Amino acid sequence: MTVGIIGTGLIGGSMALKLRENGFADRFIGSDADEQHAKRAVELGIIDEALSLDELIVQSDVIIIAIPVAATEKILSGILDKAGDKVVFDVGSTKFTMCEAIADHPNRVAFVATHPMWGTEHSGPDAATRLSFEGNVVVICDREKSGEKALKLVEDIYHNLGMKIVYMGSEAHDLHAAYVSHISHITSFALANTVLEKEKEESAIFQMASAGFESTVRLAKSNPDMWLSIFMQNRENVLDVLNEHITQLKKFRSCFEKDNYTYMKELMENANKIRRILK
Amino acid sequence: MTVGIIGTGLIGGSMALKLRENGFADRFIGSDADEQHAKRAVELGIIDEALSLDELIVQSDVIIIAIPVAATEKILSGILDKAGDKVVFDVGSTKFTMCEAIADHPNRVAFVATHPMWGTEHSGPDAATRLSFEGNVVVICDREKSGEKALKLVEDIYHNLGMKIVYMGSEAHDLHAAYVSHISHITSFALANTVLEKEKEESAIFQMASAGFESTVRLAKSNPDMWLSIFMQNRENVLDVLNEHITQLKKFRSCFEKDNYTYMKELMENANKIRRILK
Repeated sequence: MTVGIIGTGLIGGSMALKLRENGFADRFIGSDADEQHAKRAVELGIIDEALSLDELIVQSDVIIIAIPVAATEKILSGILDKAGDKVVFDVGSTKFTMCEAIADHPNRVAFVATHPMWGTEHSGPDAATRLSFEGNVVVICDREKSGEKALKLVEDIYHNLGMKIVYMGSEAHDLHAAYVSHISHITSFALANTVLEKEKEESAIFQMASAGFESTVRLAKSNPDMWLSIFMQNRENVLDVLNEHITQLKKFRSCFEKDNYTYMKELMENANKIRRILK
Repeated sequence: MTVGIIGTGLIGGSMALKLRENGFADRFIGSDADEQHAKRAVELGIIDEALSLDELIVQSDVIIIAIPVAATEKILSGILDKAGDKVVFDVGSTKFTMCEAIADHPNRVAFVATHPMWGTEHSGPDAATRLSFEGNVVVICDREKSGEKALKLVEDIYHNLGMKIVYMGSEAHDLHAAYVSHISHITSFALANTVLEKEKEESAIFQMASAGFESTVRLAKSNPDMWLSIFMQNRENVLDVLNEHITQLKKFRSCFEKDNYTYMKELMENANKIRRILK
């Protein structure tokens, strides 16, 4: 089987490395808008050959689209036009507008909308790693819109990667993703800017930074293009959760301003309930 | 040498375990306001014996105060009254008001104000671990107020624990701690509350939670008593950084509201500069 990877970076590259290691397919080909990335992906053994997008479609049995979500939306319909009975799936972090855009495509059954909940703050082929995906959740959206063959093959791939499959509507997916993924990136970006701003007057401010700081800020290293695309696509949901988060922070601020430490303690005790979710 | 630990939880307990393993002292005694904790600390081999506070002061050569900062402030002066030429140090997360409170104590030289920049979101003796401190920074505040003997012994202890010592005034310490530690806890508490609030209407919201979410929210599991005490002591600084952080989040919100994605990308690119600090 030949697997075609569009976008040979962190996600596409890690998927190729792992599927190859697991013997899922014998040939991996790639296409990347960034020629340097494509070249590097060959050097790193992620793909056997770099091809044009059109040539990749012709030669692949299954096509994985692993590029920023806005870019996916631009090319997806054209790929489905040419895909015939090949299987196509994406791995992007937002799903609703993309699924809407191809809802009436005559070849919609060839496509599966997925979101593997794994990633790091790094990007590009050099960030690709075999230590990926295993044990994490992947969301498959609007499964009833995909054909049986396509769904089966994509499920096989995710099982091969060791992921736990969860099914969800694309609209619900985007709402949930805003709360348990997208907002975390905004708070990290904003927190990095908060401290970098202070560094202008207090140059030694990072001397004491420890694990707690690193943990809450590491996502601020994430790729701006990728996240801009996600935030634009999921604008309404992200704005809702951002508003709610600012409200929650203002509760803490109000406690300080009014010296209301009884309520502040209640807020923290309530937050402790997250232990139920995070072991 | 006999080491006395006041507060046999995460920090005091971890310190005892590691100093014992490294052969720094041959006897560890403890005192804990929570009798169950003291008993558990004996069971876990953290301390050899649990004693009253007064008896602990008599029998110790060096006294480590590892309890919430507000509680430390209540007992510190009384301990120095009785400490004679024994060495006393604390490990709390705020320093300024405490150092002010004992500035004129006749036995001030016996005391060293320290803040080891290590911890986890867990607490109590069961959270104590030998996998602690090593390679992290410890801040020693207002070193010129401590006597030579006290400073030397405390430095020896932190070198024994494998920590890198940084010296700072207590006022600067509290400002820096607000930016690179305290605010991270507030954002985590608030983020946990944001998502827990949403869970009331969307019960499956955590199904997709992955490493990025865990990373930014894990500090929300932290002990409310301990952090309330820190926030109260460092009120002014924490309020400043909280205001700045809300301002930074509002910049993102404004970008969404005005569809100003050029500026949003600039905000993220600026945040990427954190790579300079976090490798």
